[in-house]
Amino acid sequence: NAMPSRFVVVLVSVLAVSVSIGIGVIIGYFSHPSANSNVQAPIEDESIQQKLMNSINKENIQTHLKFLTKKPHIAGRSNDEVELVTYIENEWKANGLDNVVSYPYNVLLSYPKQGDSNYVAIVAADGTESDISQRKELVIDPEQNDPDVVDPFNAYSAAGEPEGDIVYVNYGTIDDFIYLNRTMLIDFHNKICIARYGSIFRGDKAKHAEQYGCAGLILYSDPANYCVPGEGVYPDSWYLPPTGVQRGNLKLARGDPRTIDYPSIPTAWFKNVSETSLPKIPVTPIGYIDAVKYLSKMGGPAVPAGWSGGLNITYRIGPGFSGTYASSKMKMSVKTENEEKEIKNVMGFIRGSVEPDRYVLFGNHRDAWVFGATDPSSGTAVLMEMVRSYSVMLKQGWRPRRTLVFCSWGAEEYGLIGSTEWVEEFQKQLLFRAVAYINVDVSVKSSYVFSCRGVYSLSNLMFDVAKSVPNPDTAEVSKGRTTVYDTWLLRSPFNSSDPSSLPFFGTLGSGSDYTMFLQSVGVPAIDMTYDYDRGLGISSYPLYHSVYETFDMVTTYVDPEFTYHLAMARIWAEAGRRLSDSVILPIDCRLYGVYLDRSYDSLMTIYGKSMRGNGIDTDKLKEVIDLFAVAANEIHDKENTLDLSNDFLVRGYNDQLMQLERAFLDQNPLPGRPVYRHYITAPSQHNNYGNSGFPGLVDSMFDIDADPDQVGRWEEVKRQYSILIFHILSAASTLRTPVPITQFSVHN
Amino acid sequence: NAMPSRFVVVLVSVLAVSVSIGIGVIIGYFSHPSANSNVQAPIEDESIQQKLMNSINKENIQTHLKFLTKKPHIAGRSNDEVELVTYIENEWKANGLDNVVSYPYNVLLSYPKQGDSNYVAIVAADGTESDISQRKELVIDPEQNDPDVVDPFNAYSAAGEPEGDIVYVNYGTIDDFIYLNRTMLIDFHNKICIARYGSIFRGDKAKHAEQYGCAGLILYSDPANYCVPGEGVYPDSWYLPPTGVQRGNLKLARGDPRTIDYPSIPTAWFKNVSETSLPKIPVTPIGYIDAVKYLSKMGGPAVPAGWSGGLNITYRIGPGFSGTYASSKMKMSVKTENEEKEIKNVMGFIRGSVEPDRYVLFGNHRDAWVFGATDPSSGTAVLMEMVRSYSVMLKQGWRPRRTLVFCSWGAEEYGLIGSTEWVEEFQKQLLFRAVAYINVDVSVKSSYVFSCRGVYSLSNLMFDVAKSVPNPDTAEVSKGRTTVYDTWLLRSPFNSSDPSSLPFFGTLGSGSDYTMFLQSVGVPAIDMTYDYDRGLGISSYPLYHSVYETFDMVTTYVDPEFTYHLAMARIWAEAGRRLSDSVILPIDCRLYGVYLDRSYDSLMTIYGKSMRGNGIDTDKLKEVIDLFAVAANEIHDKENTLDLSNDFLVRGYNDQLMQLERAFLDQNPLPGRPVYRHYITAPSQHNNYGNSGFPGLVDSMFDIDADPDQVGRWEEVKRQYSILIFHILSAASTLRTPVPITQFSVHN
Repeated sequence: NAMPSRFVVVLVSVLAVSVSIGIGVIIGYFSHPSANSNVQAPIEDESIQQKLMNSINKENIQTHLKFLTKKPHIAGRSNDEVELVTYIENEWKANGLDNVVSYPYNVLLSYPKQGDSNYVAIVAADGTESDISQRKELVIDPEQNDPDVVDPFNAYSAAGEPEGDIVYVNYGTIDDFIYLNRTMLIDFHNKICIARYGSIFRGDKAKHAEQYGCAGLILYSDPANYCVPGEGVYPDSWYLPPTGVQRGNLKLARGDPRTIDYPSIPTAWFKNVSETSLPKIPVTPIGYIDAVKYLSKMGGPAVPAGWSGGLNITYRIGPGFSGTYASSKMKMSVKTENEEKEIKNVMGFIRGSVEPDRYVLFGNHRDAWVFGATDPSSGTAVLMEMVRSYSVMLKQGWRPRRTLVFCSWGAEEYGLIGSTEWVEEFQKQLLFRAVAYINVDVSVKSSYVFSCRGVYSLSNLMFDVAKSVPNPDTAEVSKGRTTVYDTWLLRSPFNSSDPSSLPFFGTLGSGSDYTMFLQSVGVPAIDMTYDYDRGLGISSYPLYHSVYETFDMVTTYVDPEFTYHLAMARIWAEAGRRLSDSVILPIDCRLYGVYLDRSYDSLMTIYGKSMRGNGIDTDKLKEVIDLFAVAANEIHDKENTLDLSNDFLVRGYNDQLMQLERAFLDQNPLPGRPVYRHYITAPSQHNNYGNSGFPGLVDSMFDIDADPDQVGRWEEVKRQYSILIFHILSAASTLRTPVPITQFSVHN
Repeated sequence: NAMPSRFVVVLVSVLAVSVSIGIGVIIGYFSHPSANSNVQAPIEDESIQQKLMNSINKENIQTHLKFLTKKPHIAGRSNDEVELVTYIENEWKANGLDNVVSYPYNVLLSYPKQGDSNYVAIVAADGTESDISQRKELVIDPEQNDPDVVDPFNAYSAAGEPEGDIVYVNYGTIDDFIYLNRTMLIDFHNKICIARYGSIFRGDKAKHAEQYGCAGLILYSDPANYCVPGEGVYPDSWYLPPTGVQRGNLKLARGDPRTIDYPSIPTAWFKNVSETSLPKIPVTPIGYIDAVKYLSKMGGPAVPAGWSGGLNITYRIGPGFSGTYASSKMKMSVKTENEEKEIKNVMGFIRGSVEPDRYVLFGNHRDAWVFGATDPSSGTAVLMEMVRSYSVMLKQGWRPRRTLVFCSWGAEEYGLIGSTEWVEEFQKQLLFRAVAYINVDVSVKSSYVFSCRGVYSLSNLMFDVAKSVPNPDTAEVSKGRTTVYDTWLLRSPFNSSDPSSLPFFGTLGSGSDYTMFLQSVGVPAIDMTYDYDRGLGISSYPLYHSVYETFDMVTTYVDPEFTYHLAMARIWAEAGRRLSDSVILPIDCRLYGVYLDRSYDSLMTIYGKSMRGNGIDTDKLKEVIDLFAVAANEIHDKENTLDLSNDFLVRGYNDQLMQLERAFLDQNPLPGRPVYRHYITAPSQHNNYGNSGFPGLVDSMFDIDADPDQVGRWEEVKRQYSILIFHILSAASTLRTPVPITQFSVHN
């Protein structure tokens, strides 16, 4: 899991040649609360809410976390697939869930060669290696000294030992590479690139390096992105020490790359690994204790503004070293290997009393790169206690209207494998039956502010839920901000210059297990965490994916009292309760209209002039979005006259609300983006963590000015524009009265 | 519309290098009535059934047919798009339907150049043309003398005036071309091929001719396929006279070829026509008054057994003419042009009283090549009277449980354009809401026997309906066979050697408007007609698509009393009534299991040995089909304990029955088959009229022995085998209890 900081994303959008539309949408969204003020998710029984919240126990969360993190539990190995799977199965069975089912898949994973693990070094003309990087992270606390710790690596890297001149590529974004290639005229062939972590998904850095012909890529954590000056580093604070290394996956394909679109069940057909889209070049991560050795010896011009990190050196582009190292090369030794392993999802079910065939899903992954006390076990511990709290309610005679499905995903760190295979296996059932998917990966990154992203039709639900949960921040409570919502609004307003602003509510990229639910099946999805202060300017919580992400670190620096974990459990439980128990689904189609409007404004800001200059009538899209708003208002107006005691009528009504998200899916994947079919919101083309609004259209215009085939490219833009309009019309039609079947009429 | 005769299809399967699995399925299917004997579609109120049937009036059908056929009414021109559209709208509004809506689309059609229409001729070395074919069909009855008659042509032919040696290619099947190419070593470049109509869809003939490099293709109607010796021809009988010509479409793409996957609405993006899959060579049809001139002059070897037609000549392969014509060439002059036109679908709605968002659709096309008294106006006349009969019931206070949708499609003759564009526009709504689609194209081809095709889960429904409708054949009634079912079973048993056989129930290709409903959205579909005696050996009813298909012809030779039309209206109305009014949907999943079983047996007969020889465990598929049968039995067993008075529980149950067909759709189209996504049944790869069971798998093995890349091809077979197994498992899972979500476990 990683959520890019808003700060960094916005910064990039300003610098970039290309801009993903999702970014623009952020600015100014939700400064019109009037459109939403009358939306209230029905709360059927407040006493149930209180009982559910009160039955959650923070000591239990702590106990779970302690157990879950006592050993490293990487995907595909027994600590995770046997010990933790059994632990979860047993707990859920003991809780008395209606069903507990495990779903195994044989999938392609990747591991370093333990005992001969990866390193990088400077190699002299005579072949002598120097400045060899650490093969393991330094053990700072004895609890980290475990033989099951997997040495730092990037999953699915190619193996190899390339040597070449070093080039610094900043974050390795597509814009960074375009700048180096077009402005600095760097020829990347036979070069070893070094990129700092941050800004975008590391797999996109590797993709760009490969596209530009690099021989290898070194990823490192720069103190500018993982430390704050004067604040010290672990073990004296929670910031990244020089010896910490961020592990992580490079694969862009979701799930097992050998079985795109289909589950890796025993009867599956598996594509040869050589024919998959896995990286073709070696990639490996290092800490800044090592990175500084190489960066400080580099030659070539100094980097442009904004490219320097936090090391006390002059950052240079290269290529190559300077001075006494001028004839030396950078060398990488990567022996990472792919391996087929069995992974498991564990699912618990509470059958709905009225609508068993409507699913509300709660998901968290189980596997960690090392101990995973933050990522993901802080979420798993919360999941375990939330499930128990539901089971307490069950024992008191309560049962939700719709079915609850609790999901412990395997192999998320390897590119969402467990959730992807499961969604692929049960996509037809989910298409017709899933109401919503609520993801918690890391539950508590820090204690600064609650953070939530998702489809906008669920945003008001989340605001309401946050208003119902006590604020774990005692200092804030003493200032009168008694709910999670209050501090959310204070510290993370959507628009700080608007006194009537709502809290910030983000959009989804592909950083965790919500991805396939939303992008492939059109299930409305939410992802949330307790976050750190984005104003710190760091790229993720600092010890992310390092060996230092331990239970003691959490109890020392993140949440000693487990009160934030408790708040997360309550938010998650209550959001699920409302989705599963409200008579009318708390899906607000009007908010999708707001989202479309904002996406349109951003599109126009960035591309409007260019589109009009190439013969596209940009008013047409606006007209269609306005028609969507009409349909959205129409359907919600019907709530006033709907007989809530008539389950049958309510089901028909709810079915239309559910179908909205599905109406945005295309029959075909987005061009060049297997498995992503959502035409309104998708992971960004050049940053899998980011979000792109109107992705088919926006992708079609990426870097279009540099394309010699202007006619062909603009035809594709026009095609995408037409498809986008069609899906918005189709969604509007889905919301209208089912008889007669009608479409808003739009003339060209 | 055209339904290939079973006789001809089976004959081809014996001759062919390739065999579509659907064919094998036919033999022996439904000789196990025990599996179905306890399936009864609930009949909620028999008095409604009787009232509905009795309110249908055969004189009204006759009156409608007279009006509908008074002028030629080709798609895209005012006789059809204005006069008949207005007529239908007015009638339905007068009937008091809840809604009548027209859906216009701007689509690509094709017309001959009137006044300079197409012909073929023999051209001598000096350029002199002789033996010029008739540009118009001879007017035999004054009613045919109408300026709006469109001269014979094949829609979407390329224009051109090629000359070359003539080659006779029999029916122009892929097997015919393979034989000529591999055994007879014919080089088709610069050749003008002549093929007889029959056996397969004419568009596939054109595709094969183009694939093999022909310069042009002449299609003709051979008396062997459209006449019976000694029976005379029109106007003395209903058989094809020498001057009759079969018009018809060549386009394989469904709908507007410029907007595959999307509707041709004003905001659509239209692909350039030159980039579509339309024919690249000229193709034109002639009658046998002309064909005999060319065929009798041909040289080269005599044709192999089975290739001779009914003309009193020696059929020869060519290439080229012989004797005094040895230096002459065949010439074609084709000036057919594509043209964008507005077409319209008219839809009438009767809103369901209980489940308005569940649709039962009745479809028939409106457009005809000329007068269309058989194709399609015999169906349109029946549709109009059926709608009126429903409106009579409405006025008596009855209202169906689910919504009825009556569809008058435009431009079906041009490759299902009206229905395809509409399904594309409303595919999301149909995916979630459509219960079934019942098609009637030609309602009465002749009076011999009722004929029905569709998905097997609806077969028992149709048997039950046929048992409830009085037999229009008075001679049969006098022998004690009082229902349509009785004569159906007598004259068209599934297995004539099995005394317990059920009637023949066929599978769907892509001959009419059911195609997109089933293949693209997974809506269970039925197609039916009153048929001629397939034992006659003719390829279609003889005057099909000729100028002689007139009202007088129908009243003289087909159904003078309109009693067969009446029976069709009753069958259609009653099938729709049961689908719309039964509490439990009359969809029998167990019969899908029977179909899978039979498809498996056919697959094994044809390909089993070869598959096993290439390392495929063919027992695995059988195992999965058996698991599907378990799930199908499970769900139907639940009917016994279902509380039919609980609308809510019944809806959940019915939803699972509805979802079955959808579970067989893949996320991706079949390889090389845009828009077809059904992995269990699809139009045949080499005959769009035919049906192929397990189409992805069967297509992957077509002509595989001749492929030099045996490894690559068999990998694709294995991939397809795996996908097929996945979809059967997925469908089985869809039928199982929704909680927990489960899959049958199959080990590899």
